[in-house]
Amino acid sequence: MPRYKVILSYDGTAYGGWQRQTNTHSIQQEIEAAMEKIEGSFIRITASGRTDAHVHALGQVFHFDSAKDLAPENWRRALNSLLPHDIRIQDVCLVEDDFHARFHAVSKRYDYLITTDVNNPFYYHYMGKDRKVLDVKRMSECARVFLGTHDFTSFTSSKLDPRKSKVKTITRLDIVQEEHAVRLVFEGNGFLRYMVRMIAQTLIEAGKHRLDVADVKQMLYGQDKHLCRYKAQAEGLYLVHVTYADTKKTKE
Amino acid sequence: MPRYKVILSYDGTAYGGWQRQTNTHSIQQEIEAAMEKIEGSFIRITASGRTDAHVHALGQVFHFDSAKDLAPENWRRALNSLLPHDIRIQDVCLVEDDFHARFHAVSKRYDYLITTDVNNPFYYHYMGKDRKVLDVKRMSECARVFLGTHDFTSFTSSKLDPRKSKVKTITRLDIVQEEHAVRLVFEGNGFLRYMVRMIAQTLIEAGKHRLDVADVKQMLYGQDKHLCRYKAQAEGLYLVHVTYADTKKTKE
Repeated sequence: MPRYKVILSYDGTAYGGWQRQTNTHSIQQEIEAAMEKIEGSFIRITASGRTDAHVHALGQVFHFDSAKDLAPENWRRALNSLLPHDIRIQDVCLVEDDFHARFHAVSKRYDYLITTDVNNPFYYHYMGKDRKVLDVKRMSECARVFLGTHDFTSFTSSKLDPRKSKVKTITRLDIVQEEHAVRLVFEGNGFLRYMVRMIAQTLIEAGKHRLDVADVKQMLYGQDKHLCRYKAQAEGLYLVHVTYADTKKTKE
Repeated sequence: MPRYKVILSYDGTAYGGWQRQTNTHSIQQEIEAAMEKIEGSFIRITASGRTDAHVHALGQVFHFDSAKDLAPENWRRALNSLLPHDIRIQDVCLVEDDFHARFHAVSKRYDYLITTDVNNPFYYHYMGKDRKVLDVKRMSECARVFLGTHDFTSFTSSKLDPRKSKVKTITRLDIVQEEHAVRLVFEGNGFLRYMVRMIAQTLIEAGKHRLDVADVKQMLYGQDKHLCRYKAQAEGLYLVHVTYADTKKTKE
């Protein structure tokens, strides 16, 4: 059965996250409901990874299989006409039958936005908020501690399967002062549950002079799930891009 | 009774407009409900003017009277703690007893934002949308037609009281190409109902080469309520600022 790769954006405000759940509205559920209307039967979709409640995406990726003879661009249009306005399909293409949105992702980019403009109604659902002006230089110094390959046990949910490897590689962690916000740009080969938000809040605490490079090193190298008690608000987090080695189907 | 001037921002997405109405949720209603909780009795508030359903504000202004001995900053905090997050009080100050938010406004600024990025879920409630790339030069040429004092009968709701003057002065109408949108900046001594949105869409049509300067002149100078059938989407409109000659109370 032909396999399709889909790139989509969503405003996560109204959703309990990506994953299908019984008690809240999920993005996966909305998409699978729209796909079922087009296909005539249920199709399971597989994303590059979950996003938490209220987290946004500019370039989430999922794959699905369908025997329906529908061109990729027609899938895109049909889905957008059925989906709510806060979920928008950007691109659909045919890929090799063994393409896997999660297992074949070679890197991901997440951005975290934090503003001091806590009283701006337009930022409420779209940025982390803190009245304190952040010391971006201090944040950048602390960010460098995370670069490279590390065991990130200290920066993930303590409920994770203890047998699962916590070793990940961060290839980029930039702190950028923008006009209305500080942007934290994360790139790496994968991120554990809550990892971006826990590192983001650790760097925000550093920006407030509550932590320094030595503290951050102690937290990371300690490899202990009790060492980081910080987690940034979900609203400021965006899954920006997922990179694959090669996704284009050779035969069209 | 002391009179207070209030500056506020709101995301108009969830509301049927500024004005108290029986069948929809209004911004005025939310604020008056919060004020009643603080004051202990109903207080009527008077805005610089109404905004339509889904229109946003960065600097709307209203006034109210209260005998309650509450400092302006405490009014601000109390209101923000009671109001929903899409309505945020920016400033409260004491003004002369005869200050009037509507009658004393000497000028207003409205911005209209329009994007070609129609498939971006984050713009849906916050910009006008049109796939066509707009000719900003043509728009600027047509915008100049509106500068100065004119009878704007052609650019307002035909349901308006025919005895009411339609003469207004526009002092600024700039078309600015920004990274993700075209911004139309309107400044004038006042705007009739739908006037900004009708002029905005007329300029957007010009930007799509469907109208030229001669067409726009004919529409404006014709002073006929049937001449303009355009009205831009509410989502792209922002009341940015209201200017008063002097609002500061001399005695503090």
